[in-house]
Amino acid sequence: MKTITILGSTGAVGTQVLNVISKHPDRFKVVGLSAYTNENLLREQITKYNPTHYYFPGGAVEVQSSLFDLIEDEKNTKCLGSLEELAEIPADIVVSAVSGIAGLWSAVAVLKRGGTLAIANKETIVAAGKHLKALEKKYGGKIIPLDTEHSALSTCLDGENSKYVKKLILTASGGALRDVPKGQFSRITPEQALAHPVWKMGKKITIDSATLFNKGLEIVEAMRLFEVPQEKIDVVIHRESIVHSMVEFCDNSIKALLSTPNIALSIERALYYPEKNNASVAPLKLTQLGSLTFEEPDYDKFPCLSIAKEMAKRGDGACIAVSAADEVLVEQFLKYKIKLTDIPTKLEKVLAKFEKIGDVQLDDVTRIDTEARKYTYSIGAK
Amino acid sequence: MKTITILGSTGAVGTQVLNVISKHPDRFKVVGLSAYTNENLLREQITKYNPTHYYFPGGAVEVQSSLFDLIEDEKNTKCLGSLEELAEIPADIVVSAVSGIAGLWSAVAVLKRGGTLAIANKETIVAAGKHLKALEKKYGGKIIPLDTEHSALSTCLDGENSKYVKKLILTASGGALRDVPKGQFSRITPEQALAHPVWKMGKKITIDSATLFNKGLEIVEAMRLFEVPQEKIDVVIHRESIVHSMVEFCDNSIKALLSTPNIALSIERALYYPEKNNASVAPLKLTQLGSLTFEEPDYDKFPCLSIAKEMAKRGDGACIAVSAADEVLVEQFLKYKIKLTDIPTKLEKVLAKFEKIGDVQLDDVTRIDTEARKYTYSIGAK
Repeated sequence: MKTITILGSTGAVGTQVLNVISKHPDRFKVVGLSAYTNENLLREQITKYNPTHYYFPGGAVEVQSSLFDLIEDEKNTKCLGSLEELAEIPADIVVSAVSGIAGLWSAVAVLKRGGTLAIANKETIVAAGKHLKALEKKYGGKIIPLDTEHSALSTCLDGENSKYVKKLILTASGGALRDVPKGQFSRITPEQALAHPVWKMGKKITIDSATLFNKGLEIVEAMRLFEVPQEKIDVVIHRESIVHSMVEFCDNSIKALLSTPNIALSIERALYYPEKNNASVAPLKLTQLGSLTFEEPDYDKFPCLSIAKEMAKRGDGACIAVSAADEVLVEQFLKYKIKLTDIPTKLEKVLAKFEKIGDVQLDDVTRIDTEARKYTYSIGAK
Repeated sequence: MKTITILGSTGAVGTQVLNVISKHPDRFKVVGLSAYTNENLLREQITKYNPTHYYFPGGAVEVQSSLFDLIEDEKNTKCLGSLEELAEIPADIVVSAVSGIAGLWSAVAVLKRGGTLAIANKETIVAAGKHLKALEKKYGGKIIPLDTEHSALSTCLDGENSKYVKKLILTASGGALRDVPKGQFSRITPEQALAHPVWKMGKKITIDSATLFNKGLEIVEAMRLFEVPQEKIDVVIHRESIVHSMVEFCDNSIKALLSTPNIALSIERALYYPEKNNASVAPLKLTQLGSLTFEEPDYDKFPCLSIAKEMAKRGDGACIAVSAADEVLVEQFLKYKIKLTDIPTKLEKVLAKFEKIGDVQLDDVTRIDTEARKYTYSIGAK
């Protein structure tokens, strides 16, 4: 029986992790849960899974107390003071499914105690992946990617010697706007951009998928997780989202991981690793599907992808700043404060401002993130 | 530097093995060569690669002596009395690229001395694969498949635990007749059946590809090499021959190996294993290719595939007999003695005659093979 803590248990990934766990109650025991705003769902989850600890900032003291009172009287469930404290509680696997840089210190906490970190929180990997990898090596823990693409890359690299890797090939569905002409981009509404053709995900990542900035973040994520330079990472548009990613080796063979699109695959991989589980993902019928297609990304139509590649070349500082700026801009777009086409325009300005920082110490990550957000707001007013 | 013996060095696979070796003279030294009929090419190869030993049955004493005289005077190259003797000569890798059951005892000889056998000789695996696997385990040798499909399966299984394997999925180009209506099959000429859309191979295997009997042999080959039952092996028509085969795991993920179609990939894998080499195979450009297609095989149009699956279920005796019969029938078809549609009709008769034999001892393989050929000739007269 593996013990599991889920940071961000009420989000799109967190709820799917709990869904997988609930199918295998003999294999997993939830010991920690946390949510950022969804008090009601967190209370339900605590009642159902009975963790020993939870964390809920809530934003208002009365909200937290009400949750606290409701739960603590009847359960042995203790509210902790921070995500980091929750991450420090012994658990075989800590799933980090929080959004944004807020997940940084809890990820650090897991790795500092030599724990296994199953991480979907890509902003943290983008901002501090080098430090996380160093901590993984120093304390003997393990980072397991939860992103479908990086989970697939990791699976394709199982049993292979990394010195023979020629390229990592990330596939991209193309997002909600893949068939929308570029000329219409300035009039795209949040509703249109949120209509992802394949994946049901959180709002931030769905907008990032529509601009392809998400794929840019994934390039940096792959650079950090697999310690390869940006030139060794390609992006291919693959509309069917069946091939989750590929590894090309020096002998020009390519290993690919395929399945029906379902994040449960990478969640199960992370929870069962190094074992495999009889699937809750539906079998793939390639002959019913008929064909798989591959196209080059349209960098002209999706400038956010070029910007992300550029930030990847510039180093940590640029990655932290542009990624933070994107969080701000996506939020502004979702609130109808800016146009979709304002995102790349403003990201470019942020990149220009922060591109010279180079490598960043762990203690400086949050500061640069904050500075970038401030700067983004300053250029973000209409 | 690895020492290499090639059994069948003048055939389609043998010459390609030498082609790979000639590009890497610092890594490989040819120590043994053999041919069945092509005296001139063997002489050229002996002169170029200077092996310590060779074997050439020739069929006529004078041919062998002439070859012998020409070579032995000037080179330290010794002619041996049989393929088995050549296989027994110490070599890091023995490549078996001979055709038909003639390769059986040399394969046994390599494994009995605990050697590495890189094998393209599928009839031998089909007839005696269980025994070869037993010898591999007993004497600590290694069987490396040279068939592109099985090499791909083997690569997809690297680093994976076989207990999690749900299915092996063999891909098939569909052969020369994939777009020819079934109604025309009785009028197909050898020339038409030899026009393979993707692979340039020997005549026997090209005809077997046209009837899909080759894919049936590959099912049995996969059963023997990877020790899985027939129900766990699927065949998928994949016209582009880019995905060389796939492994489906219990979590419903599928690992696939892709490359431009070129047997050099599996040859290099076998020669360099467990290393990988900077490729002589051209890189794969999926976005230039655009799409990969997958279809169910048409069992009605290609009855040889059903017959092969049936023989696979019946066991060794049926596999040996039907495979031997197919060798006879393909030869008769190539000599315009029978129609293409006679092949499945006659294979069915052979299957009916030999299906009850079950498992076969190594010493009985040749006898059953011979009996099946005799029986095939007896039903083969027009």
